[in-house]
Amino acid sequence: MKKALGIGLAGFGTVGSGVWETLEKNSELIQARTGVQVSINRIAVRDLTKAREGAAAELFTTDWQEVVNDDSVQMVVELIGGTTTAFDIVSSALKLGKPVVTGNKALLAERGAELFELSRQHNAPILFEAAIAGAIPIVKAIKDSFAGNRIESMAGIINGTSNYILERMTDAGLDYKVALAEAQELGYAEADPTLDVNGWDAAHKAILLTSLAHGFVIDPADVYVDGIEQVRGTDIAFAKNLGYVVKLLCVMHTRPDGAVELRTQASFISQKHILSSVNGVFNAVAVTGDAAGESLFYGRGAGKGPTASSVVGDIIELAQAMGQGSQPAGFLPYKPDGGLLPIEETETPYYVRFDVSDRPGVVADIAQVLAQHGIGISGTHSPVNSDDPDAEFVDMVFMLHTCPWGKLQATLSEVEKLDCINSAPVVFRIEAL
Amino acid sequence: MKKALGIGLAGFGTVGSGVWETLEKNSELIQARTGVQVSINRIAVRDLTKAREGAAAELFTTDWQEVVNDDSVQMVVELIGGTTTAFDIVSSALKLGKPVVTGNKALLAERGAELFELSRQHNAPILFEAAIAGAIPIVKAIKDSFAGNRIESMAGIINGTSNYILERMTDAGLDYKVALAEAQELGYAEADPTLDVNGWDAAHKAILLTSLAHGFVIDPADVYVDGIEQVRGTDIAFAKNLGYVVKLLCVMHTRPDGAVELRTQASFISQKHILSSVNGVFNAVAVTGDAAGESLFYGRGAGKGPTASSVVGDIIELAQAMGQGSQPAGFLPYKPDGGLLPIEETETPYYVRFDVSDRPGVVADIAQVLAQHGIGISGTHSPVNSDDPDAEFVDMVFMLHTCPWGKLQATLSEVEKLDCINSAPVVFRIEAL
Repeated sequence: MKKALGIGLAGFGTVGSGVWETLEKNSELIQARTGVQVSINRIAVRDLTKAREGAAAELFTTDWQEVVNDDSVQMVVELIGGTTTAFDIVSSALKLGKPVVTGNKALLAERGAELFELSRQHNAPILFEAAIAGAIPIVKAIKDSFAGNRIESMAGIINGTSNYILERMTDAGLDYKVALAEAQELGYAEADPTLDVNGWDAAHKAILLTSLAHGFVIDPADVYVDGIEQVRGTDIAFAKNLGYVVKLLCVMHTRPDGAVELRTQASFISQKHILSSVNGVFNAVAVTGDAAGESLFYGRGAGKGPTASSVVGDIIELAQAMGQGSQPAGFLPYKPDGGLLPIEETETPYYVRFDVSDRPGVVADIAQVLAQHGIGISGTHSPVNSDDPDAEFVDMVFMLHTCPWGKLQATLSEVEKLDCINSAPVVFRIEAL
Repeated sequence: MKKALGIGLAGFGTVGSGVWETLEKNSELIQARTGVQVSINRIAVRDLTKAREGAAAELFTTDWQEVVNDDSVQMVVELIGGTTTAFDIVSSALKLGKPVVTGNKALLAERGAELFELSRQHNAPILFEAAIAGAIPIVKAIKDSFAGNRIESMAGIINGTSNYILERMTDAGLDYKVALAEAQELGYAEADPTLDVNGWDAAHKAILLTSLAHGFVIDPADVYVDGIEQVRGTDIAFAKNLGYVVKLLCVMHTRPDGAVELRTQASFISQKHILSSVNGVFNAVAVTGDAAGESLFYGRGAGKGPTASSVVGDIIELAQAMGQGSQPAGFLPYKPDGGLLPIEETETPYYVRFDVSDRPGVVADIAQVLAQHGIGISGTHSPVNSDDPDAEFVDMVFMLHTCPWGKLQATLSEVEKLDCINSAPVVFRIEAL
């Protein structure tokens, strides 16, 4: 019998307690399968007075340093979230040479450069399967299973909250605000849903996936991110008529010259693509490797059990290797920065919605500016306001041919100057997957 | 710089040469990402006179023992297929303590008990990602990522040939034989397609997945397997009308008492389930774990690049661990046999097609036998032969309520004795996923 490897756990909220429960419930199975015996020896929490079901009271402390420094702790599992105390915990563990398991996408996307450097210096891996897409083993897929592949593209629906909201807008015709309120009521959206609906939760995950695929650390400031806050019923209906659905999509493309496109925005995707069937709080990532071809990984992207499943998978991987006196290979950046293609140079077709004053000549005015800049129009549409056929302001939709994002933005800022335009146009990409 | 780990390769056909090419093409990338340098040092083939693009002539031999015993060979990659010479190669390597990578599902499903025992005795892992579902990293998912989960169910479409044939029958209305001939012409089916269409190729993979999930070795003789040879246009049209599609489906269910159901047969699945969209030569496996919830893994199930991708992933995993003087955890059975539920005790609803003489009283006669055995009928249908409304023989279809397979078979053998029945009835399960 190997001796048990000791875990120090920071955080005993939904995921932390889920990890405790999973390790308890399936401990015999885990030991039989993997030869690994692990035990959570210390737990750091913010508030000792909360009820902590399951774990013994003496394991808890409010001092995370006690946990990290404890001699019975050989690996640290960080599940408190945020980028400040979490950073201190992870960096302290690494400096002691203790491997880290974390589910903290914001921490790694924002401060990964420092942490991966510490990981390298102290030869202590950081495992983060739980940081991306809940139970879906996408980190291991990219990092290990597809390690022999050049990753040509990825497309992900990796924020369940926004996906749920868009689905309800699509299927039940709900308004954005009503759908958001419903998601909050069901516990699918936080009281403060900002990071979910503005695209940044998804973008953090996409940044990490891109680092895994390409080996360089990405500065979030270099990444184009837009959310779903501007999506209206008009857009969804228009998409549907043309055979598309609207999804918050993270897209990564590797160009033949090695430059990497990365963006997160509300996008039109074909109803025929399998990603269009990813509904509710599910997540999915499509990956194309030069050898593997197209693959799709689909599953529960959040929640107690699914996230705990990934944390426990990482714990077991660590424990199996550490039991042999070795370590699993954690991700380490292997290329300098700078591979990201500026967003201005990325090209797709677009859907653009203008809020216009309904007077003769509007279409001609807009079309003329587009023509001056050489941007082709594949279709225009102005939905009739059936409640008020003589409404003063209407939505005017243009479908535009492929052109660079920078050119589109320059053109649109000129269109905006037309006196018939009432507010900034709304743009969604049409992504060919 | 770590020294390169040497590979001995057995087989240089489609997959073997694909592994060579992938390692060549992406060697710098692999080294940067993983710190691993591997080289194929010896290659065993049957026929030295065939052109071997890429690899140097002096690497080749027709004597596999030379390859396995070579001192420069630290791991053996078996890609020749079959269960005789392949067994000798794999067992010899294990006896020398050399880890093995294989894509040979038949070998492991038929002779896994012996090989895993050798793996245990000689402390040399067997890695076999490529044996199941081509590029899809389903072995690693079950064995590692979901190691903390009790696996509650799996459902797989894991034979691309039969899936392609069924798709063409469904979408283009082709006859079975025409669809099969087309698949052969396109290279999707072998000249001898027996194992693809009779279900055994898929069943071998399902046996391995079930062993991974539950830890016991399964005797293929204990597994119910049926293929797609009996599927007719009638069945597909009938399925479609009721909102189903016909798929060759591998199903594993874990009962609450721990008994395990495992079967491979042509089945009706709901058009709404994501597995129903798995078309062409793609594979997919849906997995439900007690913590992870539902997941789906989708990708290319066969072919040079996809299979090579998985072989190379395994090679890298081995090389990373061996470079640290350790080893990845290969699968080892951890439970005695005997957990499989006898097929007679498994229960689903069914679709049954009878070939009957068209005379008054046929429906009543069949229905009476079913009633005597307490099997409920949810619907019957007799498609009119529009070419010949007075045809003597017709198809008569019954949809039956859930009952044990054993009871159904006993009842059908009695129905068969009716003089209106012309041949053995054809049964497909209706699988609720």
